[in-house]
Amino acid sequence: MASQEKKRKALEGVRIIDLTIAYNGPFCTMNLADQGAEVIKIERTEVGDQTRTWPPFKDGGTGVNDSGYYAFLNRNKKGMTLDLQSAKGKEILKKLVATADVVVNNFKTGTMEKLGLGYETLKEINPRIIYASASGFGSYGPLSERPAYDIIAQALGGIMSITGYDGGPPVKVGVGLGDNFTGTYLSYGIALALFNREKTGVGQKVEVAMTDTIVSILEAAIVNYTMTGEMHGRVGNIDPYTAPFDMFKAKDGYIVMAAASQLLWEKLCNVMGRPDFIDNPELATTGLRVKNYFTIIKPAMVDWNAAHTIKELETMLYEAGIPHAPVLDVDQVVNHPNTKAREMVVEVDHPVIGKMKIPGVPVKLSATPGGVDFPAPLLGQHNEEILESLGYSKEAIEEFRKDKVL
Amino acid sequence: MASQEKKRKALEGVRIIDLTIAYNGPFCTMNLADQGAEVIKIERTEVGDQTRTWPPFKDGGTGVNDSGYYAFLNRNKKGMTLDLQSAKGKEILKKLVATADVVVNNFKTGTMEKLGLGYETLKEINPRIIYASASGFGSYGPLSERPAYDIIAQALGGIMSITGYDGGPPVKVGVGLGDNFTGTYLSYGIALALFNREKTGVGQKVEVAMTDTIVSILEAAIVNYTMTGEMHGRVGNIDPYTAPFDMFKAKDGYIVMAAASQLLWEKLCNVMGRPDFIDNPELATTGLRVKNYFTIIKPAMVDWNAAHTIKELETMLYEAGIPHAPVLDVDQVVNHPNTKAREMVVEVDHPVIGKMKIPGVPVKLSATPGGVDFPAPLLGQHNEEILESLGYSKEAIEEFRKDKVL
Repeated sequence: MASQEKKRKALEGVRIIDLTIAYNGPFCTMNLADQGAEVIKIERTEVGDQTRTWPPFKDGGTGVNDSGYYAFLNRNKKGMTLDLQSAKGKEILKKLVATADVVVNNFKTGTMEKLGLGYETLKEINPRIIYASASGFGSYGPLSERPAYDIIAQALGGIMSITGYDGGPPVKVGVGLGDNFTGTYLSYGIALALFNREKTGVGQKVEVAMTDTIVSILEAAIVNYTMTGEMHGRVGNIDPYTAPFDMFKAKDGYIVMAAASQLLWEKLCNVMGRPDFIDNPELATTGLRVKNYFTIIKPAMVDWNAAHTIKELETMLYEAGIPHAPVLDVDQVVNHPNTKAREMVVEVDHPVIGKMKIPGVPVKLSATPGGVDFPAPLLGQHNEEILESLGYSKEAIEEFRKDKVL
Repeated sequence: MASQEKKRKALEGVRIIDLTIAYNGPFCTMNLADQGAEVIKIERTEVGDQTRTWPPFKDGGTGVNDSGYYAFLNRNKKGMTLDLQSAKGKEILKKLVATADVVVNNFKTGTMEKLGLGYETLKEINPRIIYASASGFGSYGPLSERPAYDIIAQALGGIMSITGYDGGPPVKVGVGLGDNFTGTYLSYGIALALFNREKTGVGQKVEVAMTDTIVSILEAAIVNYTMTGEMHGRVGNIDPYTAPFDMFKAKDGYIVMAAASQLLWEKLCNVMGRPDFIDNPELATTGLRVKNYFTIIKPAMVDWNAAHTIKELETMLYEAGIPHAPVLDVDQVVNHPNTKAREMVVEVDHPVIGKMKIPGVPVKLSATPGGVDFPAPLLGQHNEEILESLGYSKEAIEEFRKDKVL
């Protein structure tokens, strides 16, 4: 009865065979599972995905089921162990592929082919299969065989060179952006291939490379260089295309503000007690404000911010309708009323970790809302259920277990 | 003939009415147009999207058609002007919506309703319509009415607090990440809604908020805080979960490297001439290497890197199979052979700017490849074509022009 009251989800009825490990692939399949796909995560026997050893831990990380890292990233997925090096493991995987819509992996380019599980093989079994891969450099190109981590993609893709302060060293984005953005692009590619398959009846390969991802998100940095031959360098907290738009140090912390239109600029001048700026011909247009930001505007804003608390600044800026925000720490983000109202931190009850708070679902669909319905799987939790659905007997499953296929 | 040789694209036959401005919405519709959707970009009469005034420019930005920023972001889209404040403009938009699959906007929450173009109105006209919105804080929640820019979302979402060096100030990611990641999530949400509509026949609302986006990509920072009560703070270029994984200063520039497994660690010890580290009990496991990274490992790596050029380090690390990369500037990214091989910078011939190089398409589909097929529209370039397809006569169109509806 309860299940009938549940709303349909967008990917209901879509079965995903998930061979991914670490962060980018699992982020992709999390996006899919959150929207209703049945994701069957295949893990190595005994040890599972490497993130089962990544902190934070409930019990010190001595087992395979207490990693908070694994748990937030693999919610809504079923878990199965399988030795893909063994003939029986391959046989089981192929049977699963025959029942599935999508196979996702993020192994180094060539690994699936070495396992005898490349696209050409799997599409023989199931011509409707969508075969999706995330990797550092993709399946072709001069770097395709190289291993990568997020930091490699951030360095080669150019984002480190433009993040950080002018005169200071490059800065890596503080999260695995090459991973989670690549995973999201791959989710998008899979959704496209699913939609296309409704029209054509056939599957295809989808691939996203971490380095390509970073190159694609450099905003206007590429076109600025190709059109003018110039580079912005590291931009600190400003926006190269408008001003004022920056972070400042208040008495008790950091605050950002942006007054990117004439109206907002005039309001800001009044709020900060510099109405004279409004009539200053050197600050009359956005172009001039960009040009003279560091010499005229910024010094005044630095002094004004330094003389007030965050609270005082927030009150003034809010009343004037000027976009602004304090720079929140993670605890402030988690405990912010907006985070709660938007369900961006949600609770899930994990059998080992217990009730835990994890990130929610950012893509909000009105008729088919996604959500966090069940916790990440214990290692091999759904082995029986899945193998039985493929027609294997209890005896056969016991045999697989003895032979360490599971 | 030529068109018959062209491969099908995944979103062929999908018509998008694109009301978006600035960066996040146009990034979303670029993702859709790159994969074959017919995107009709509706712009304000006379001035168009604000990015038509954003640098770089071909002719100094004196007209509305020479912005490189606008041009890279709006390739593959058709362009039409329309005064949405006028009764006739609304009438034309509603006729367009009746023919369309998707409407996308990124106005401040409430603007579409004030225009009389909210979801409830548009779905009366077309129950199959997918109504997609990007905004700073979404359509509900305590901040929903507030305006936002990328920096506001980066501050409120927590990513600034964990980007930058320990002891230094927070750092904004050097690109509009709150924008382009939100745009990509929205593309994913639209693809989900299109797929779902194939099953159910009806459309729905899709929304993504910039602040939600940032909260969703903080990797394990949230679960680390909620499980342990602790925060990592600003992590510089390291990864909090493994070591060594960092950026170093070589004789002639910056280089990153990551040796995140036992095997890679031992190879690195040999390459950097510190085989004694392999047997050091204080560095025996990943956990210990994380713990003692700053006191034991990093000083040795700093000295080793400082004594060599990037070229020398690359040779040694490549031969040892250790993931590494120089920190590339934007010119090096644009001119890298991998960028060319992956078609991540492509040429397009723009009627005003001329031949220009812009970012390519990162989501690679084998059977239905996306691509950059035509340049961004001049302001109002497709007014006649689109209005005639709706059945308006040349006389009616001339009338609209006189009345400044176009």
